[in-house]
Amino acid sequence: MRTWLAVLAASALAAAPAMASPLRTGAEAVRDKALHDATAYDYVESLSVEVGERLAGSDAAARARDWAVAKLTSLGFSNVRVEPFPITAWLRGSEEAEIVAPHPQKLAILGLGGSVPTPPGGLEGEVALFHTYADLLAAPPGSLAGKIAVVTQPMPRATDGTGYGALNPVRRAGPSEAARRGAIAYLHRSLATGISREPHTGALNYQPDAPKIPAAALSTIDAELLDHLAARGQPIRIRLKLASTTEPATAWTVEGEIKGAAHPDEIVQVGGHLDSWDPGTGSIDDGAGMAIAVAAAKLAGSQNSPARTIRVALFGAEEMDFARPAFAAAHAKDNIVVIGESDIGADRAWRVALPAGSAKTPEMLDYAATIAPLGVVVSPDPSRGSGDDTADLVRAGVPAFAVSQDASRYFDWHHSSEDTLDKVDRDQLNQAVATWAAFVYVAANSDIDFKALAPAATFTATRSPPPAAPAPKPGP
Amino acid sequence: MRTWLAVLAASALAAAPAMASPLRTGAEAVRDKALHDATAYDYVESLSVEVGERLAGSDAAARARDWAVAKLTSLGFSNVRVEPFPITAWLRGSEEAEIVAPHPQKLAILGLGGSVPTPPGGLEGEVALFHTYADLLAAPPGSLAGKIAVVTQPMPRATDGTGYGALNPVRRAGPSEAARRGAIAYLHRSLATGISREPHTGALNYQPDAPKIPAAALSTIDAELLDHLAARGQPIRIRLKLASTTEPATAWTVEGEIKGAAHPDEIVQVGGHLDSWDPGTGSIDDGAGMAIAVAAAKLAGSQNSPARTIRVALFGAEEMDFARPAFAAAHAKDNIVVIGESDIGADRAWRVALPAGSAKTPEMLDYAATIAPLGVVVSPDPSRGSGDDTADLVRAGVPAFAVSQDASRYFDWHHSSEDTLDKVDRDQLNQAVATWAAFVYVAANSDIDFKALAPAATFTATRSPPPAAPAPKPGP
Repeated sequence: MRTWLAVLAASALAAAPAMASPLRTGAEAVRDKALHDATAYDYVESLSVEVGERLAGSDAAARARDWAVAKLTSLGFSNVRVEPFPITAWLRGSEEAEIVAPHPQKLAILGLGGSVPTPPGGLEGEVALFHTYADLLAAPPGSLAGKIAVVTQPMPRATDGTGYGALNPVRRAGPSEAARRGAIAYLHRSLATGISREPHTGALNYQPDAPKIPAAALSTIDAELLDHLAARGQPIRIRLKLASTTEPATAWTVEGEIKGAAHPDEIVQVGGHLDSWDPGTGSIDDGAGMAIAVAAAKLAGSQNSPARTIRVALFGAEEMDFARPAFAAAHAKDNIVVIGESDIGADRAWRVALPAGSAKTPEMLDYAATIAPLGVVVSPDPSRGSGDDTADLVRAGVPAFAVSQDASRYFDWHHSSEDTLDKVDRDQLNQAVATWAAFVYVAANSDIDFKALAPAATFTATRSPPPAAPAPKPGP
Repeated sequence: MRTWLAVLAASALAAAPAMASPLRTGAEAVRDKALHDATAYDYVESLSVEVGERLAGSDAAARARDWAVAKLTSLGFSNVRVEPFPITAWLRGSEEAEIVAPHPQKLAILGLGGSVPTPPGGLEGEVALFHTYADLLAAPPGSLAGKIAVVTQPMPRATDGTGYGALNPVRRAGPSEAARRGAIAYLHRSLATGISREPHTGALNYQPDAPKIPAAALSTIDAELLDHLAARGQPIRIRLKLASTTEPATAWTVEGEIKGAAHPDEIVQVGGHLDSWDPGTGSIDDGAGMAIAVAAAKLAGSQNSPARTIRVALFGAEEMDFARPAFAAAHAKDNIVVIGESDIGADRAWRVALPAGSAKTPEMLDYAATIAPLGVVVSPDPSRGSGDDTADLVRAGVPAFAVSQDASRYFDWHHSSEDTLDKVDRDQLNQAVATWAAFVYVAANSDIDFKALAPAATFTATRSPPPAAPAPKPGP
């Protein structure tokens, strides 16, 4: 299954043919070093143990900023700096939910990021349970008046994580869709592949035309409990208590670079996000992603003095959507050759997507040959983006490079208290580092001009908020 | 792997030879019915959905009692009755733990059953971390003065659950061992096989000569976090806050029977325990165990009118050790032919242990032949007991029958919030029912006299509190 493990065992299993370009030879050397390098694992171990959760706007986020500055500095990056930007911090308070009738039981929930609190004493309502999100959208205006809407649609497991993208509206748009129909609160089955008692949180996006109602994710086990209960046909009543606060705060993107020798103003930009959700230690989201980007930059930049500058950014507020516009504003005038964000966990890479028009260039053919022994293929489709934090720049025309890592296990833990260090498999992590590092090496040591190669704008946002469904006519 | 699944597929795959005894023919018919019967799964589904957690002494325990009476009645048991007994209820309050220094992080814990609370404001102390329990026992007197003792020894996975028995003193005796050495609180890595954020609780046993200190289980993930932190060599400080209350309360064992036609006073006694720990829904501990015993009794008792009485007991307070003496006192004079408690989850049976001296009788040879196609063997060792609630009667000479179910997964969820319905595999559950039901059928429809067959007392408690280690000499 993991054929690339053979690469780990050999020092340079897939050596280039004798006439290979120096670019490919260098990329292969970087790849092979990455497979045995400790940088990425040490990065995520240190972050998990010494910082842990780091929700943007929390005290922990400031500790994470200081940790990141020290870490990039100790790894030898130059020009390490902190780029502040204002955010509205959402901070979780105490949270409780329980079935009141017909059979009392506690429910394991986590409030959604951005949710308004309930009244201090909580609220109670009869459940309107929908087995699919489509059923909720089909509910007529006013039909949920006074009720707590519950969506229990399960999410499929897939290597490319498609289930999460497809069901993202359940979490992001569901609260406003329920509110438009009269609901007083909203619960949904966690966007998660496993069956577990740990709920998975995430941000919601209230729509301007709907009342803001409290919203939370149910653990998959508790969603199934409600399914079992609903099958009995009796009315179900739930009590919900959510306390959260919002306040103006500052977030920080931390950056560092390895200066290019020949073209210092041409920037190969990689990164991951520094903030995390609060229940876990953010080891896979996005400790591992940052670790991959940082280790790749370091390995690619130390093989030889790179021609172009390699820059890493540790974005300070991805989860609540603040880092993207801040980074784009700060770097609109930079000459960024290519950009990529690593934000899909710690498992093996299996596919890369290259900037449009570049796949048949000698440089990218060298790159494809370098990663083939790792079990990684080049997607026939060009990249359409690469992580939320780069999306505004990509929309503005910056070429993107994206790596698909195996997401089969990722959504078992993502955004939950189970996002912890034990989920990181060193071999898979390093294979992802190798995939990124070889690309960074090729991009930073060649003259490839991705912008010039691009046939036309091909960007589609990978995870931007979905368009709102048409609003139902208001009820009587 | 699951060869017995072939039995499920056939209506009567392993039919007895033409000359087989009527006892074996009947036992095989019961076995084959059990493999396709809905009783056990419906029992545990109903209990999980309509009652959920039911800690002895809680309001939920009274709901569980009423549910059990209704369930046994609706299944056709006669003489359904409630046997009350007094207990000291231990009820969990709010619980919090966090690393204060060197790097602040929250810890996922669950107070141990019977633990005293901390002072209302909590307590704080430096950690004395022991990678093994033996290291704690080797700590000199006074060496833990003012400290929070933490034991992080992991538990191995095993089909027979040996790891749990071997490490039981870590939880039961560890608090007093730490207190004798001066500790102000005690934390231990959950007695659990998985790596998870959910702590696993369970009862402790304070020793009379040691101060009572607050004690809690760490999730395995948080225990590993402390291991990582300890490896850095800096002092670790933890804050712990546990609130719990105790109060005099009543618990109830619920019983029902299928009256014997020929020898109504000779009782084949089976059961499971009705109470559960509070974080989950008690679906595997011991919802499934009860379900197996109840379904086995019903199937065995409805194949034909049994010669002996088949009785089921749903013990009302196993987890805190109250049901055992109460049941023994109430039933000391009963003529119990054989007794067995089903309390090791919902997975497949693989071994049975028979009363001493009985293995070579025609009745038990018939039984062994009946369960062989299920992939179940007879242990070369006789039974030494069968569940905590029967132990006093077994000590007094009542013959025991025990079934080993596969415990490989059981301790991933046992005593945690993950003890929920989704862990129950219908096929494995029914295979365990078949194993029990065939035994009950043979015991209730023969004249086998296990007591007369027994060569001598062979009892050893399966899970009684371990003997206290020698107390260290008091410090200065």
